[in-house]
Amino acid sequence: MHSLELTKPDGRALTLYSRAPLAPVDAAPSPFAEPLASKAHLRWHPLRGEWVTYATHRQDRTFQPPPEYDPLAATTDRDRPTELPGGDWEVAVFDNRFPALGGQGAADVPELHVATAAAAGHCEVVVYTPERTTALGALALGHIELLLEVWCDRTRRLGARDDIRYVLPFENRGVEVGATLHHPHGQIYAYPVVPPVPARMDAVAREHVQTHGRGPLEAMIAAERSDGARMLYAGEHAVAFVPVCARYPYECWIAPVRAAAQFADLAAAERADLARALKTVLLKYDRVWQRPMPYLMAWFQAPCDGDTHPGAHLHAQITPPYRTRDRLKFLAGTELAAGFFAMDALPEEKARELQAIEVELT
Amino acid sequence: MHSLELTKPDGRALTLYSRAPLAPVDAAPSPFAEPLASKAHLRWHPLRGEWVTYATHRQDRTFQPPPEYDPLAATTDRDRPTELPGGDWEVAVFDNRFPALGGQGAADVPELHVATAAAAGHCEVVVYTPERTTALGALALGHIELLLEVWCDRTRRLGARDDIRYVLPFENRGVEVGATLHHPHGQIYAYPVVPPVPARMDAVAREHVQTHGRGPLEAMIAAERSDGARMLYAGEHAVAFVPVCARYPYECWIAPVRAAAQFADLAAAERADLARALKTVLLKYDRVWQRPMPYLMAWFQAPCDGDTHPGAHLHAQITPPYRTRDRLKFLAGTELAAGFFAMDALPEEKARELQAIEVELT
Repeated sequence: MHSLELTKPDGRALTLYSRAPLAPVDAAPSPFAEPLASKAHLRWHPLRGEWVTYATHRQDRTFQPPPEYDPLAATTDRDRPTELPGGDWEVAVFDNRFPALGGQGAADVPELHVATAAAAGHCEVVVYTPERTTALGALALGHIELLLEVWCDRTRRLGARDDIRYVLPFENRGVEVGATLHHPHGQIYAYPVVPPVPARMDAVAREHVQTHGRGPLEAMIAAERSDGARMLYAGEHAVAFVPVCARYPYECWIAPVRAAAQFADLAAAERADLARALKTVLLKYDRVWQRPMPYLMAWFQAPCDGDTHPGAHLHAQITPPYRTRDRLKFLAGTELAAGFFAMDALPEEKARELQAIEVELT
Repeated sequence: MHSLELTKPDGRALTLYSRAPLAPVDAAPSPFAEPLASKAHLRWHPLRGEWVTYATHRQDRTFQPPPEYDPLAATTDRDRPTELPGGDWEVAVFDNRFPALGGQGAADVPELHVATAAAAGHCEVVVYTPERTTALGALALGHIELLLEVWCDRTRRLGARDDIRYVLPFENRGVEVGATLHHPHGQIYAYPVVPPVPARMDAVAREHVQTHGRGPLEAMIAAERSDGARMLYAGEHAVAFVPVCARYPYECWIAPVRAAAQFADLAAAERADLARALKTVLLKYDRVWQRPMPYLMAWFQAPCDGDTHPGAHLHAQITPPYRTRDRLKFLAGTELAAGFFAMDALPEEKARELQAIEVELT
C-alpha cells in the first residue's frame, strides 16, 4: 500500500492511498476556504449513563447536492473545488468538515448541571473509489483488500492518539439510512470513550471467554460452519453468514475465522479472504431486488484503550433497513425505547433467499 | 374509573374503560374469526447479551388500511367487524392480534446453537378514544387522566403475572415512525425479562442513589426547575422539559416531581398534574409546524420483577424524529452501531422554540 499525506487549505488532513506508487499531487482542494472554527462538546446523560455529543455546525452540512456537483469526485474546475484532487489514488481519507467529534478551533463547553467536556475524538470520510457511479461490492477484490488496509492504517493512526479509545469504520448506504452523498464512501468515527454498544459487547465477550474458553463470535462461527443453514460464504480464513440472532431481516455478518481483535491483527491471506466474503454479500444484496440495497455496515474491533480485550473479534455487521421490497423495518417502541428487537422474518428463510443468489467474484 | 371485561370470538381479551359507569355491551367484535395459532420465540444474541423475539405471523399484519375502514373505530356494520364495540367507553385495551411476545397456541421453538425459548409476555393495543380524527393532546384533561389510570391498571394486571418482568406503554405516532393506523392509540409491551434499555437505566439509577442519595431523574428535575432554561411545564406535582442531554432535537420528558416508581404509586393530584404536563407538550408539538408532530413516546417505570429498584422514577421520554420541518434525524452509524448519539441542535435552543408556543389547557 502506498500513501500520500496532504493538508487542505482549511487545515484538514487528506491522505491518498493506492496499491501502486502515487505520483505527486499539486495541492489538496477543499470546497471550504475558511478553517472550521467550532468544536463539538459532550454532555453526560445521567439516566442512560452515556455521553451525547453536540455539534451545532453540523446543521449546515451538505445535503444531496445537485447531480452535477459531486464533492467526492476529483476536482476538474478550479473555481469549484471538491474534496479531492485528480491523480491515480484509489482510496482517499479526509477529515470530516462537519465532525460530530473533535474539530478545529476552541470548544465552547457550557457549564450545566450534568458533566460536560470538549468532544475529543475525530471524524473522517473514506472515499472508496474515484468513480462516483459504482458501489463497494462492484470494486475489484484487490481494491477491497486495499480498503481493508486503509481501515487498518486509520485505526492504527487514530488509535495511537491519547484522546481516542475506540475506532469505528462504518457506511450508511442509501437515502433510507440518511446518506447525503451517493458517491461510494464510508466514514470513521474515533471516540474519546468506548461507546455503549462496543462497551457492552466487550463485557459480554469477556464473560463468555471466562465461561466457555473462547469468545462468542468464535464459538458462533464454528457452529455456523458446521450447521451451514445460514452460511453465505465459507472460506478458509473468512466467513459471511446471516446470524442466527439477526435483528434485521437481511442482516449479515462478515468475519475472519480466527479471532483477530483488530484490522492490524489480520494476515494478508485473511484480508484477501475477508474481501471475498464482503464482496459476496454486497453483490448478493444488490441482486435481491435488482437495485442497490441500502444498509448500515459497521466494523467492530477491540477498543484501543490499552487494556486487554479477551474475546474481541473483528467483524462487520451489515443491517439493511428493508423488511420486504417495499416495506422498511421501522425501529419503534420496542427497539428504540426498550432496546428489545422484534423480527417477523426467520434468519433461516432470509439466508435461503440470499444463498440462492449466485454471484461471481473477480 | 369503570371497566368492563370481554372476550373476542378469536379468544383475545378486550377491556373497556370510562370515567362513568359503562352500559353492558352485547359482544366483543373481532375482524378475525380464527384463533391466533402461533406464538413467538426468543433467541439469545451472544454478542450483545440480549434476547431477540421472532414472530413470523407479524408479516401479515394490518398495514394502512383504506380510509373507509378503521379497525379501531366502533363496529357499525356487522359484516365488517372492527376491534371494538359501540357504547360509551372512552379508552379500550385489547390483545394485539400480531403480538411480538406471547400469543395463543403452541410455541414453535427451534433448537439452535444459541439459547432459545418460547416468547412469554404480552402485547396490547390501547385505543385512546373512540374518535378517530383527534389526537392524544386534544383530549380533555380528565380523559388523559383516565388514560394514566388505564396504564396503571394494565401495569398492575400484567405485572402480577409470573412470566412478566417489565411493562412498557408506548406510542408510535405518524408514518415516519412506522405507525400503520391513524386512529389515536398506543401499545403496551409486557416483557418476560427486563429489556436492555430499562435494565441499563435501572443499574445507573441504583448507582446514582448510592453515590448521591437520590435517583438521577429526581436530581435532574430539581436542577431543571431551579434553572428554568429548558422547562416547558412546572407544576406543583409534575414537570415537562427538554432534557439537558436530549438525544433528539425535540425530545421532551414528562415526570412527576416526586420519584413515584410506577403508575400505581401516583396520587390523584400527581396524576392530574401529569396529565397537564403531558397535554402541554403534545399541544406545543402540533403547533411547531402547524401539523401533527410524529413521535415515539415511551413511559418508563420500575421493573415488576419483585426486586427493589432504588432511584426508579416513572417518566415519559418523547422523541420526535424530525430535526427541522423537512429533515428527519436518521439514526445511522454512530447511533445504531455504537449507541453514541450525535446532535446538531442544542437543547436550550429547542426549549426556547417550544417555550414560545402558548397553549391552553382544558
